Amino acid sequence: MDREIYLDNAATTRAYDEVISYMNDINIKYYGNPSSMHTKGIEAEKLLKLARERIAGSMGAVPGEIYFTSGGTEANNMAIFGYLEANRHSGKHIITTAVEHPSVLEVYKYLSKKGYTVDFINPDSQGIIDLNMLESKITSETALISLLYVNNETGAVQPVQEVVEIKNRLNRNAAIHMDAVQAYGKIRINPGKSGIDLMSVSSHKIHGPKGCGALFVRNGIKLQSILFGGGQENKLRSGTENVPGISGFGLASEITFRNINENSQKLSALKSRFIELLEEKIQDYRVISNENSSPYILNVAFKNLKAEVLLHHLEERGIFVSTGSACSSRRNTSSHVLKAMAVEPCYIDGAIRFSFSSFTSIEDIEYTVSALVDIIPRIRYGGKK
Amino acid sequence: MDREIYLDNAATTRAYDEVISYMNDINIKYYGNPSSMHTKGIEAEKLLKLARERIAGSMGAVPGEIYFTSGGTEANNMAIFGYLEANRHSGKHIITTAVEHPSVLEVYKYLSKKGYTVDFINPDSQGIIDLNMLESKITSETALISLLYVNNETGAVQPVQEVVEIKNRLNRNAAIHMDAVQAYGKIRINPGKSGIDLMSVSSHKIHGPKGCGALFVRNGIKLQSILFGGGQENKLRSGTENVPGISGFGLASEITFRNINENSQKLSALKSRFIELLEEKIQDYRVISNENSSPYILNVAFKNLKAEVLLHHLEERGIFVSTGSACSSRRNTSSHVLKAMAVEPCYIDGAIRFSFSSFTSIEDIEYTVSALVDIIPRIRYGGKK
Repeated sequence: MDREIYLDNAATTRAYDEVISYMNDINIKYYGNPSSMHTKGIEAEKLLKLARERIAGSMGAVPGEIYFTSGGTEANNMAIFGYLEANRHSGKHIITTAVEHPSVLEVYKYLSKKGYTVDFINPDSQGIIDLNMLESKITSETALISLLYVNNETGAVQPVQEVVEIKNRLNRNAAIHMDAVQAYGKIRINPGKSGIDLMSVSSHKIHGPKGCGALFVRNGIKLQSILFGGGQENKLRSGTENVPGISGFGLASEITFRNINENSQKLSALKSRFIELLEEKIQDYRVISNENSSPYILNVAFKNLKAEVLLHHLEERGIFVSTGSACSSRRNTSSHVLKAMAVEPCYIDGAIRFSFSSFTSIEDIEYTVSALVDIIPRIRYGGKK
Repeated sequence: MDREIYLDNAATTRAYDEVISYMNDINIKYYGNPSSMHTKGIEAEKLLKLARERIAGSMGAVPGEIYFTSGGTEANNMAIFGYLEANRHSGKHIITTAVEHPSVLEVYKYLSKKGYTVDFINPDSQGIIDLNMLESKITSETALISLLYVNNETGAVQPVQEVVEIKNRLNRNAAIHMDAVQAYGKIRINPGKSGIDLMSVSSHKIHGPKGCGALFVRNGIKLQSILFGGGQENKLRSGTENVPGISGFGLASEITFRNINENSQKLSALKSRFIELLEEKIQDYRVISNENSSPYILNVAFKNLKAEVLLHHLEERGIFVSTGSACSSRRNTSSHVLKAMAVEPCYIDGAIRFSFSSFTSIEDIEYTVSALVDIIPRIRYGGKK
């Protein structure tokens, strides 16, 4: 296959070349355990320190507020379990939405069997949380509010500032947890200033290595460990630190944030062009992603076709896309996100997520749309263009 | 520094060159998310499958019994929390030893505040569990017995077969969990045949990458997840799989097991030579590691000196060692392992762990002992040789 157009960047990204060679170097030269007292340990510890400064700097945090984890899933689990366990007095009520990533949704489903009352708020048809509904749910018993900053399937961006304001007005003690895995490196976020208490980010979504993530924990917020042991990460997250991975994550963040504005502009233009081309050339589809969604994600539902069939036709032409999120794509169930947004049945099974990165070009998009023009009429139930 | 003699392999190892270049290749070519439905996902999934077969094959297990984790610490936490949560009916009593790794010890300290009764059995002066004591502790309420297969500070090997037999005689329903992080790749272990139910292993101790480990879960043993989300690892361990890391772990295992017997023989000879040279040239020391301990670890306590001082003098000569384990070395407290073995106070602060790998040579050992001969008289409290 000659051409490779990778439009599944919300599932995972190709690491930057600089990141890959940096990790390679560290594997060869700086293989010490950061807890060791000798030079090889200290060298490794310095690498961790640099990475922590880079991640902290990217979000206006101080290094002590950054805890490295094995990825976004662990960061979300640690945020929720860790906060609730360390703050048992703060109430047994939780608010989240029905369109969270499984690493939040499944934690709350579990907790709802363990004595917590969890409100899973449905979003509006744009995938945005209903602020009146939120307001009506907050009580003095509310311990935690978890939101997906940018939805991984649709790119919908939640109104974080408004959520924080409402929460502060009604229950200043409730904590705000943001799953920022799809937002980080794409939108500038300063969790400290924004009133976010806990924020999860992931490395492999920003051209860093897999197996790395971080949790921002605002100074003063108490967390209980979920992994116990040697007391690494300021006693909160035990386990020998993945020095090459964490370092690669730090460098990926550095590179990503250097170009965050340019990339955002470039991808906004690219996404607009994609939508324009669809309008010109395709019929019977719905753009699921709303107007203000992340420029990195475009979810389009094509009427009367099976998204999997389209996916496989696209990959024959070297174009890689996703139906819904990667996590659930193998399960062959309709997207919980699109269902919660009340997308009509004739569209929901034909939803494709195109997700971009700074590596994506306008030519990639043009090629993709011409492939769609070619494929769609042949695979539609009714045979329509 | 010209010479580099790395004798801290129990803390972490240098990855094999083949492993580093394999991971590099995967980062470049096979960056897909294994959950994606397209070719790039399937390629990544195939890599996971190969790694799982390699790890399973190394211990006579079937691939479905292997669950990848972010390392040994997570594997231990998942084994203990996951087993107890999924088997709440099986009793609230646990048996372990006082010489476990912190990733087991700290879990049990936590659980002992959460309604579990945990017996931390002291070992004998050789660091071996007292089987009579074990026998006296097992009741019908015993849910889990956790043991460190090879002690990370002393190399002491626990009598696993005897423990399993005693357990089976007194309470067949109790489960056996082995922390095999320092044993794996050094001793041949077939957990299935040995009656082990749960076994934790780590990648970076066998020249694989950091940030990877695995838990063997015997077929039929029920475990509750400790990380919830996308349902990876057969729904037990969520989070996008660290494909390059896991693949590197698989290859490291393959290489390690190919030479396991030769390496064991080589290191036994090397360790004997080390002890011989000490006998010839050094006075007032105690070999803490017992006669049957792992050939990969030699713990020696030098009388009337501070191990840290010796460590720093050694590193000036390019020799890297450890005082106790890496995890606790920064804490400046005496080793809990040596204390539990009742090592005398005049020795305990002078304990150095030399830990070897297949990269270690006899010349390295000879050079190290001549360095010891030079340094020790100058740093002893009394000035003795």
